[in-house]
Amino acid sequence: MDKKLSFLLSLFLIFSNLSFSQIVQDAEYYIIEAQNKQVWEVEDQEIDSKLAELRDKYGTPPNIIHFMWDDQPVMAIGDPLYQKMRGYETPNLNKLSEEGMLFARMYAENGCTPSRCAALTGQHPVRNGVYEIGFPVEYRGLAAENVTIAEVLSQAGYSTAFYGKLHMGDVEQTYPTNQGFDEAFWAVYNQVFSLWTAQGEQANAGIGLYEEILADDPYQLDNTFVQKGYVGYLEGKKAELVKEWGSSRTLEDYDKFDFEAKKRAFNFIRKNAEGKNPFFLAWWPQWISFVPNQPKTSLQRGLVGDGYQNNLDPTVGELISLLHELGIAENTLIVAMADNGPMVHDPPPGLGMGSGLFRGGKGDITEGGVRVCAAAWWPGMIEGGQIAGDIIHITDLYTTFARLGGATQYIPSNRITDGIDQTSLLLNGDTYSRRDYVFIYSGPTLAATVKKQYKKHWFGGDPLAAASGIGAQYYDLYNDPQEISPILVGSLHMKEPFNRMRARHDAWIDVYPHIEEAIGPAYTGISNARPETLELSKPPEALKNLPFDVLDYINHLEGLPYDPTDPDFGQ
Amino acid sequence: MDKKLSFLLSLFLIFSNLSFSQIVQDAEYYIIEAQNKQVWEVEDQEIDSKLAELRDKYGTPPNIIHFMWDDQPVMAIGDPLYQKMRGYETPNLNKLSEEGMLFARMYAENGCTPSRCAALTGQHPVRNGVYEIGFPVEYRGLAAENVTIAEVLSQAGYSTAFYGKLHMGDVEQTYPTNQGFDEAFWAVYNQVFSLWTAQGEQANAGIGLYEEILADDPYQLDNTFVQKGYVGYLEGKKAELVKEWGSSRTLEDYDKFDFEAKKRAFNFIRKNAEGKNPFFLAWWPQWISFVPNQPKTSLQRGLVGDGYQNNLDPTVGELISLLHELGIAENTLIVAMADNGPMVHDPPPGLGMGSGLFRGGKGDITEGGVRVCAAAWWPGMIEGGQIAGDIIHITDLYTTFARLGGATQYIPSNRITDGIDQTSLLLNGDTYSRRDYVFIYSGPTLAATVKKQYKKHWFGGDPLAAASGIGAQYYDLYNDPQEISPILVGSLHMKEPFNRMRARHDAWIDVYPHIEEAIGPAYTGISNARPETLELSKPPEALKNLPFDVLDYINHLEGLPYDPTDPDFGQ
Repeated sequence: MDKKLSFLLSLFLIFSNLSFSQIVQDAEYYIIEAQNKQVWEVEDQEIDSKLAELRDKYGTPPNIIHFMWDDQPVMAIGDPLYQKMRGYETPNLNKLSEEGMLFARMYAENGCTPSRCAALTGQHPVRNGVYEIGFPVEYRGLAAENVTIAEVLSQAGYSTAFYGKLHMGDVEQTYPTNQGFDEAFWAVYNQVFSLWTAQGEQANAGIGLYEEILADDPYQLDNTFVQKGYVGYLEGKKAELVKEWGSSRTLEDYDKFDFEAKKRAFNFIRKNAEGKNPFFLAWWPQWISFVPNQPKTSLQRGLVGDGYQNNLDPTVGELISLLHELGIAENTLIVAMADNGPMVHDPPPGLGMGSGLFRGGKGDITEGGVRVCAAAWWPGMIEGGQIAGDIIHITDLYTTFARLGGATQYIPSNRITDGIDQTSLLLNGDTYSRRDYVFIYSGPTLAATVKKQYKKHWFGGDPLAAASGIGAQYYDLYNDPQEISPILVGSLHMKEPFNRMRARHDAWIDVYPHIEEAIGPAYTGISNARPETLELSKPPEALKNLPFDVLDYINHLEGLPYDPTDPDFGQ
Repeated sequence: MDKKLSFLLSLFLIFSNLSFSQIVQDAEYYIIEAQNKQVWEVEDQEIDSKLAELRDKYGTPPNIIHFMWDDQPVMAIGDPLYQKMRGYETPNLNKLSEEGMLFARMYAENGCTPSRCAALTGQHPVRNGVYEIGFPVEYRGLAAENVTIAEVLSQAGYSTAFYGKLHMGDVEQTYPTNQGFDEAFWAVYNQVFSLWTAQGEQANAGIGLYEEILADDPYQLDNTFVQKGYVGYLEGKKAELVKEWGSSRTLEDYDKFDFEAKKRAFNFIRKNAEGKNPFFLAWWPQWISFVPNQPKTSLQRGLVGDGYQNNLDPTVGELISLLHELGIAENTLIVAMADNGPMVHDPPPGLGMGSGLFRGGKGDITEGGVRVCAAAWWPGMIEGGQIAGDIIHITDLYTTFARLGGATQYIPSNRITDGIDQTSLLLNGDTYSRRDYVFIYSGPTLAATVKKQYKKHWFGGDPLAAASGIGAQYYDLYNDPQEISPILVGSLHMKEPFNRMRARHDAWIDVYPHIEEAIGPAYTGISNARPETLELSKPPEALKNLPFDVLDYINHLEGLPYDPTDPDFGQ
């Protein structure tokens, strides 16, 4: 037996002897579980009684609302001093934070697509291949064999709905309605549609999407380079054909989208509250980013500040009022958060940057890329006025929501789930996190590992130091939050422990290999598909007699050159 | 009459026609005063009655405590989310902030010496020459003709004391006891004495101060390059000879210094409260920076976090308890703040950086250099729970303290006072500042001008753009708090208004020229001067027969080459 296999087998045997639940966690978790198990068992019994008591009172397990928007740093909500310095206010989100728990160390992935995938699957997206930010047309997405939190909670009797921006692919398998959601109304890609309009073409040089308003180009030979049939918004119900909503080519529909999502979200909540069904709502509005033509209501006069003040924040106030009105506030958990760090690289003019304490933003592996604003609200269950200094990761929501919904047994046991059950953190408060580490990926590449206040960069930094193998890529996040001053001598005792963490993490992947992303024709299963949409899935007339199959490239999209140091990657 | 003189005369005539008080403010103030005068007059009447009412109740005008420490960014106190991310806590300073007013835009100068000078004189230190950070031996300091806040308040019957780090020069004129303070106990320079000890010599390569523990240097020819008689700490009473305290050469005395200052501060408060004298206390501890050998009580394990938790913060708690115990809490204003931005350039190991939202730190002209943490506390007079988004400058404390002490008439009228009376901000709250601008100096050079949310850099940035005269050096501080993305086209309408502000500011200097700093022998007027201290003021025996007067260089210290872009300048 070769050395590597023997090592893997011994790892497997060690882990098999631990009496863990059926969820397969990442290797590191078992190291800390083994040291804290007895305390956690006692906590878990208390948590179970507390949840049972609540269930007795309301007759259902708790409702769960995951409300997530784009690109905002830790201090963006719940920190009035920061807001004074940035020139905007979010009174409703601040109230939600004060009445609940504000997170100082909520980690997400470093871009929209990977974070959204992580939230729905409980996995670092490297495990299911959905880590690359795509634009029309991708021919990619989340494969059917993944088990989303909607599927997990559906099995436990929850009504489930998805409203807002998904941005996880455009193949039929990926549609939320095929991933466990009873109903969905979603943006297939991101906010760039606000610029991809005739108005955008007039205002911005060089987009080239609206040939009808451009001068004729006598040099143009290829009419297929820019695709015109792409789909912006879809809607549908579980396992049914879906429908295209509105037009992906007007600013009017872009503007309307979030208000329509809000209307449906409120109806969904009302309907389930009145029907006494427990519900799970993933509501991920497009507001904040790229919303032009807003009233200028914030002092900062930026798109972000106005986005908060005009739409996002008042909506949160209305949401909370609705829950109180329906009498389900104390049986509803809201997790409100951003999906990744601020868009500090080449943002659209007037976006309002959004920098926080940390260096970098969306697409980066520094804390600025992955640490996001987040708060959890659950009156009566989460004690108000808390700021949690604990590490928590967006994948933890998956496992925690499953626990709260009494659905842990529906989490698949044949793959690694990165998410850890953080119910104890929510209910017992600050310091009760069950993780002291996080792995930070950039696309398919392990980019950094955090343990406690220390962080190891696996790439980047001084190339000479990295090449020498000494690699002073250790940072102290409390004392050097901007990751500017790597520590060499003072961190040498951490070199081997960090190497061990990585080796265990990698070895466990050999035992539970990654799933591949789905690849295939886009936009199938749409009942009202436009002719130009349908044409995207078949060869254009003019290209029928080529020496190769013009659609065969779809099978070669995977594994395109990927530069993990490119900050524009993580859009 | 030449054109410039004619312009100045017309300016002078315009300003003479405004009915301003005897204080001469900077030109910009008159522009905004002219537009807001009627509102301010009404406010001022209400403020006067409120102060009179308080005076009737306590029999004295309010006591004033200016508590100031080193190098901390805006969020360092009063922002528990920031503290969670940095790994330390200041419960007492946070309580002070919550019970009072926290400032989002308190501007200081960009280094210790200039900020301390600004606080005491109410002027940008360019006006009195005390802007350069000196080390032993400087032969420089604040000239006698300056009128400090201690002199102003003394004339109104206040007891005045200075305890802590002064760092404003080492000539006799500068001693606080010669600048209006009844009593003083002060560090002449800064915290570097913690390293300048035999222990420091052992631990740090290359200091070279303790020749007795070093190998003999056979190449050494000059025994005067490193001066050994310098004085670390002085104490004394108004207009008397002062005494050297402790030894400037041991870590023990460095460690004791702040505790001795604290003891004297508490005694001073108690004595005056019992004697029913109004008092002004400038208490500027050395704690936070460079304090080695502390207990490791903070999660961050850095010198800053431990400095807060071990000493600075508990002391604030004791101070507030003392004021309550003495029954003077409601008649005492505390302003607690840092003197400049964090020491982000080449900090000592383990200092704990201290970065905040803004870019840069101490020595820089970006907001990171000049915007500091600050809070004001005055129960019953300052409404609690406020965060002021107003611009306020450290010089404003001078004018505000004078107003509160009924001493405005003692502010000299033959020079420009940059400080603006901000009593309305304190008593009426957020949005009641009387300035919407601030000038940012780097040493003697005007470096930037802030008006509302906009900032113009007068140097730095892209040299080509600067040389072209187009100069896209305009920043939007709400949307680009890190001053990374200069705005060109979007700020062109601000070019001439910013030019006008600068021209008015410069023209007013021609009318009221700068005072020169004091230059002369150091350490005179010390009753217990050591022989080696005295020798610093006369030629060493071996240098008596030179072809020039060995001490004549003192007169040539002024105007040494100064690089305003050197970030190490502002220590």
